[in-house]
Amino acid sequence: MSEHVYKQVELTGSSPQSSDEAVRIALAKAAKTLHNIHWFEVVETRGHVEDGKILHWQVTIKAGLRIDD
Amino acid sequence: MSEHVYKQVELTGSSPQSSDEAVRIALAKAAKTLHNIHWFEVVETRGHVEDGKILHWQVTIKAGLRIDD
Amino acid sequence: MSEHVYKQVELTGSSPQSSDEAVRIALAKAAKTLHNIHWFEVVETRGHVEDGKILHWQVTIKAGLRIDD
Amino acid sequence: MSEHVYKQVELTGSSPQSSDEAVRIALAKAAKTLHNIHWFEVVETRGHVEDGKILHWQVTIKAGLRIDD
Amino acid sequence: MSEHVYKQVELTGSSPQSSDEAVRIALAKAAKTLHNIHWFEVVETRGHVEDGKILHWQVTIKAGLRIDD
Amino acid sequence: MSEHVYKQVELTGSSPQSSDEAVRIALAKAAKTLHNIHWFEVVETRGHVEDGKILHWQVTIKAGLRIDD
Amino acid sequence: MSEHVYKQVELTGSSPQSSDEAVRIALAKAAKTLHNIHWFEVVETRGHVEDGKILHWQVTIKAGLRIDD
Amino acid sequence: MSEHVYKQVELTGSSPQSSDEAVRIALAKAAKTLHNIHWFEVVETRGHVEDGKILHWQVTIKAGLRIDD
Amino acid sequence: MSEHVYKQVELTGSSPQSSDEAVRIALAKAAKTLHNIHWFEVVETRGHVEDGKILHWQVTIKAGLRIDD
Amino acid sequence: MSEHVYKQVELTGSSPQSSDEAVRIALAKAAKTLHNIHWFEVVETRGHVEDGKILHWQVTIKAGLRIDD
Amino acid sequence: MSEHVYKQVELTGSSPQSSDEAVRIALAKAAKTLHNIHWFEVVETRGHVEDGKILHWQVTIKAGLRIDD
Amino acid sequence: MSEHVYKQVELTGSSPQSSDEAVRIALAKAAKTLHNIHWFEVVETRGHVEDGKILHWQVTIKAGLRIDD
Repeated sequence: MSEHVYKQVELTGSSPQSSDEAVRIALAKAAKTLHNIHWFEVVETRGHVEDGKILHWQVTIKAGLRIDD
Repeated sequence: MSEHVYKQVELTGSSPQSSDEAVRIALAKAAKTLHNIHWFEVVETRGHVEDGKILHWQVTIKAGLRIDD
Repeated sequence: MSEHVYKQVELTGSSPQSSDEAVRIALAKAAKTLHNIHWFEVVETRGHVEDGKILHWQVTIKAGLRIDD
Repeated sequence: MSEHVYKQVELTGSSPQSSDEAVRIALAKAAKTLHNIHWFEVVETRGHVEDGKILHWQVTIKAGLRIDD
Repeated sequence: MSEHVYKQVELTGSSPQSSDEAVRIALAKAAKTLHNIHWFEVVETRGHVEDGKILHWQVTIKAGLRIDD
Repeated sequence: MSEHVYKQVELTGSSPQSSDEAVRIALAKAAKTLHNIHWFEVVETRGHVEDGKILHWQVTIKAGLRIDD
Repeated sequence: MSEHVYKQVELTGSSPQSSDEAVRIALAKAAKTLHNIHWFEVVETRGHVEDGKILHWQVTIKAGLRIDD
Repeated sequence: MSEHVYKQVELTGSSPQSSDEAVRIALAKAAKTLHNIHWFEVVETRGHVEDGKILHWQVTIKAGLRIDD
Repeated sequence: MSEHVYKQVELTGSSPQSSDEAVRIALAKAAKTLHNIHWFEVVETRGHVEDGKILHWQVTIKAGLRIDD
Repeated sequence: MSEHVYKQVELTGSSPQSSDEAVRIALAKAAKTLHNIHWFEVVETRGHVEDGKILHWQVTIKAGLRIDD
Repeated sequence: MSEHVYKQVELTGSSPQSSDEAVRIALAKAAKTLHNIHWFEVVETRGHVEDGKILHWQVTIKAGLRIDD
Repeated sequence: MSEHVYKQVELTGSSPQSSDEAVRIALAKAAKTLHNIHWFEVVETRGHVEDGKILHWQVTIKAGLRIDD
């Protein structure tokens, strides 16, 4: 991490399966347009509920990407 | 979410399996007496440990329920 | 928990599989040298990413251990 | 405030007009079922947006109500 | 704490004597209507003052109560 | 909110009139270049003062926008 | 803001009308004794309630004033 | 609290006896120069220790005082 | 405090009597194995409850100890 | 700051020399692609260590840039 | 620190040179009117930027001063 | 960072020279007894003052060290 400048981007992904899967989906989709994502940090975990069941998890992450020269 | 007033309730569920499962158990049990839960937010994730193994996860959520007219 | 004094230790475990697994790995390894861990609390969930995929989850916990007489 | 025990309840109201109005709506509706609300504190101010315009403000408050004998 | 779902309630008690006494009063009064309170956590300690003397302490706690089946 | 990935952007708008108006101005201007803003959350409310009068309110929001495919 | 030292003062104003008005009142009154207030930041928004109506808003701000030579 | 503007002041008192006593000492001393203190809020509780015994408690409070006309 | 390096340790003590006593117990017990504790800071105050009465207070502190040469 | 809308961007710079230098490097590099950066705020200061020596400081800032018309 | 009551004051200093220098300038200027400042704590580090260069650092501190008898 | 478990330790170093130097001193001294420190994070920056001059900076860091097998 030493010689580079990084930019952090806040993203929210969602998944009907699990909180971890919501993070994976956010990163996979972001990787299509944002190159060089190196790490993430979970900021918030939420979800939508119907009849006592979780419809989907929504997890917000901060993703760190290297700014290329 | 526009025309309603919501009330938030803080709940703690527990599960020997996983942190996500502890959330599902809290919501399933709460749904028996609290109707109209629409969303939740994870507030705290803890657990009990014995001999280096997790006995059960304890996850505290804030659940938002619509106040009916 | 009543008659004892507890010490909290902050640990970070990592796992390529899941955030929960990173907690289990931290506790299992810590149990080799730190006896009497009774509970934990998740402090931070992060991870490393390559090509939009999570290489490993890194979860930091506070673990509470009883100080023996 | 001296001789009583108070309970705090978290509520979210919404209004297309203003953030203050969302608080007033939450309190007015809550007053139908919760007696003795004496004060509130704003916890969070959010809103929904369409085409760069605010559809409605959503303000979450903590309301303090006296527990009667 | 393992097999149950808990609900957290925020309460404020007051006492002219001490901050600890304000917590005891909040719990004693709450116990009349809320069964199964198992633990509490202090959220805020305040007080009213007149002529440089404390008229009463006001302590806000989060109390955790087991939801019965 | 279920099937999409969202990005959060932090914006500061200002208005001589009111705190709510500062939010509206930030959203209206941002909407010219950032499409699909769906919600916002107020992060900070500040202002500039001269002779005891508010020259303008400055409100910082986090705006959530859907990443299109 | 470059060549000066600033002091921050925490103030609470109140108004039956609106949260913004409570800030204006705090600043107007403070300006009578504290010169050179240049900016403020909202710290807390509360209010008193009776019969489901807001009696007055109470807004706490941090006000920054330049220390003159 | 309705018609007045309040100023908050942060004070630290200390006492060899108890945490509550440290608050009382801070308020009693402050009352000699600062009139109209109406409430306080505990911000931080610390202490000095020697040979495993507390030499004195140090409690920091925010005290709210009415600005007279 | 000038010429030394300090280490902070997080400890939880408990007492059926009072919150202050729980701090004293934690420090007294810690002093048997950790030398040179010079100060502490209260991090969290909790307790266990039965039938509306506090069984014991649990107070978590950060204790600062000087690292000897 | 009055008539403009600002966007905040989170950046991390690093330097083997000092924490201040890490901020300067982040701003210098960001200025190549992001115009109109007017202010920054330090969010986090970290660093990498080897054999008790700091290899480089890593400082994360929030940078505020004016959105041009 | 034992026998005295302390008051905390929040100050912002600025310097074109470094963040540490901004603290020194705030303390030096405050010492002209506020006697008995014994310690400080950094609350916030910000700065103004032009063309990717820092014009001046602005550091806000809380300074603790002893109230004399 | 992938295959290891890390432990975080909180340390306070001090220096009459600068805030950065206080961090370097804490790390250098800690390295004598704690091996494998890989990173740190600044938690708090304070200092002692006399006659408006800084006697020494005191910086608290969290240092992360790898637990060896």
